[in-house]
Amino acid sequence: MRDLDEFTVTDETLSQMANTPNPRFKEIADAAVRHLHAFARDVNLTPEEWIQGIQFMTAVGQACTPLRQEFILLSDVLGLSAVVNALHDKKARELGSQSSLLGPFFREGVELTPAGTQIVEKPTVPEIVVYGKVTGNDGAPIPNALVQVWQTSERGHYDLQERNGESMDMRGTFLTDADGNYHFRTVRPLGYSIPMDGPVGAMVFAQKRHGMRPSHIHCLIGAEGHRELVTALYFGDDPYIDSDTVFGVSESLVVDSKEDPNSPIPGLRAVHYDFRLAKAAPGESGRVGADPTKLMKAAE
Amino acid sequence: MRDLDEFTVTDETLSQMANTPNPRFKEIADAAVRHLHAFARDVNLTPEEWIQGIQFMTAVGQACTPLRQEFILLSDVLGLSAVVNALHDKKARELGSQSSLLGPFFREGVELTPAGTQIVEKPTVPEIVVYGKVTGNDGAPIPNALVQVWQTSERGHYDLQERNGESMDMRGTFLTDADGNYHFRTVRPLGYSIPMDGPVGAMVFAQKRHGMRPSHIHCLIGAEGHRELVTALYFGDDPYIDSDTVFGVSESLVVDSKEDPNSPIPGLRAVHYDFRLAKAAPGESGRVGADPTKLMKAAE
Repeated sequence: MRDLDEFTVTDETLSQMANTPNPRFKEIADAAVRHLHAFARDVNLTPEEWIQGIQFMTAVGQACTPLRQEFILLSDVLGLSAVVNALHDKKARELGSQSSLLGPFFREGVELTPAGTQIVEKPTVPEIVVYGKVTGNDGAPIPNALVQVWQTSERGHYDLQERNGESMDMRGTFLTDADGNYHFRTVRPLGYSIPMDGPVGAMVFAQKRHGMRPSHIHCLIGAEGHRELVTALYFGDDPYIDSDTVFGVSESLVVDSKEDPNSPIPGLRAVHYDFRLAKAAPGESGRVGADPTKLMKAAE
Repeated sequence: MRDLDEFTVTDETLSQMANTPNPRFKEIADAAVRHLHAFARDVNLTPEEWIQGIQFMTAVGQACTPLRQEFILLSDVLGLSAVVNALHDKKARELGSQSSLLGPFFREGVELTPAGTQIVEKPTVPEIVVYGKVTGNDGAPIPNALVQVWQTSERGHYDLQERNGESMDMRGTFLTDADGNYHFRTVRPLGYSIPMDGPVGAMVFAQKRHGMRPSHIHCLIGAEGHRELVTALYFGDDPYIDSDTVFGVSESLVVDSKEDPNSPIPGLRAVHYDFRLAKAAPGESGRVGADPTKLMKAAE
């Protein structure tokens, strides 16, 4: 038997995991153990701090419900989601539109509606139109591309927050036409605070961060033979455009709504954005869409 | 605005956390972010793997109940608890007995009973006696030291598992006598598998690990002016003594039960172990005891 110290425990842990049959799982678990142990050694983590960490992680897990994914929120505010996104993006960066965070509010099953549909049930502020083209990386229009969008209301809440998940609003699913064009009506969403009433909010508060996200519209674009694109369009005049709490903004995703003679709905201010999809590599799914209500079912 | 890549996201995250008022919290959160991001970059974590990780952490959080602390279990099987323990131990290694893992089964509020009490309500195998002395690092006996012990039954289960938390068994609280002596009756606990029916068990299974802990008795020893000692005594002839799933065994904590002419209860096989407590530094609590039922209350 060997007495373990704070370094040899790492070797011993890796050695116990050495027979993991799935090589990718082994690679990820090995790296997780190495970094976890190095983190504890770097800060000389005390037992009291360790137990506080256990309590925090437990509270994050228990805050998750079918309508709330507190671990995604934690990943978001710690910048992990943005790192994963950047790694994913790197492969396609030259070829397609830039991606952004999926976030915890995507939902599957939104009914397909005709181009031009207003996605907000009862708008209380002026309508706008969002339009553009979906093309491949060669610039060729993609007909029948699936354009899924979701956003907050003019009050800064998703339907999951305003309606407790009972019905859907501020979500749309559209198909591009024969020339790759899409357009829909909406209202300008309000930027918002991440949920501050849970353990992640308490952490962000303890870090004296504002917790705000700039106004944005989420987009999930898919087409046969192409990498699915998860992205979002950010309104450039939002006061938090340079300090997004979850690090989702990129220069190339910044838009504004303006008078636009080419608007498909004359008289409405328009946001114009063309999406470019990278070709899928053989065997690649690129599918990252995740409905939190399904996630929670998987966890049960 | 600056477009973030997988490296500059880290700088931006640290910059958003730069105003954290508590310097120790800032130090820990900064190191956590650095290692978390480096981990994701090292393995080039994909969005699909990230979402699997989110699902796993959520499942771990949701598996926690007042009677089960799945995050402590995760920390244990990943060797993190042993690292924290080794770091804690390093300060006292020359001065006191070696420490071991607290584990998730400690409970507060076990009634104080006289020396020699049998801690198992209905023993079905031969009784043994555990005895010894509690001393300071100078070897001087410590009277009135609090000796708390807990263990599995001869069937390999804690009371929290056998009795659903409704009553206590296989736990004892004793005070040392004027000469620093303690002794209590018990049975030899059976080594056991960590709980394999939750997400952490599924992980251990996927790693082809046996999931077993060698037979042991947990001990939490406290005395005025001394560092609290969290440790455990391990039975050396257990088949898993060299491959504890949670990395808790140290050479100096290995015992056996044998015929012993000095046994305080003649006729019973005895385990003899003397505990040495390090002096507490001024202002140091060293308190790491954590009752899972209280932990869960804190998380609610």
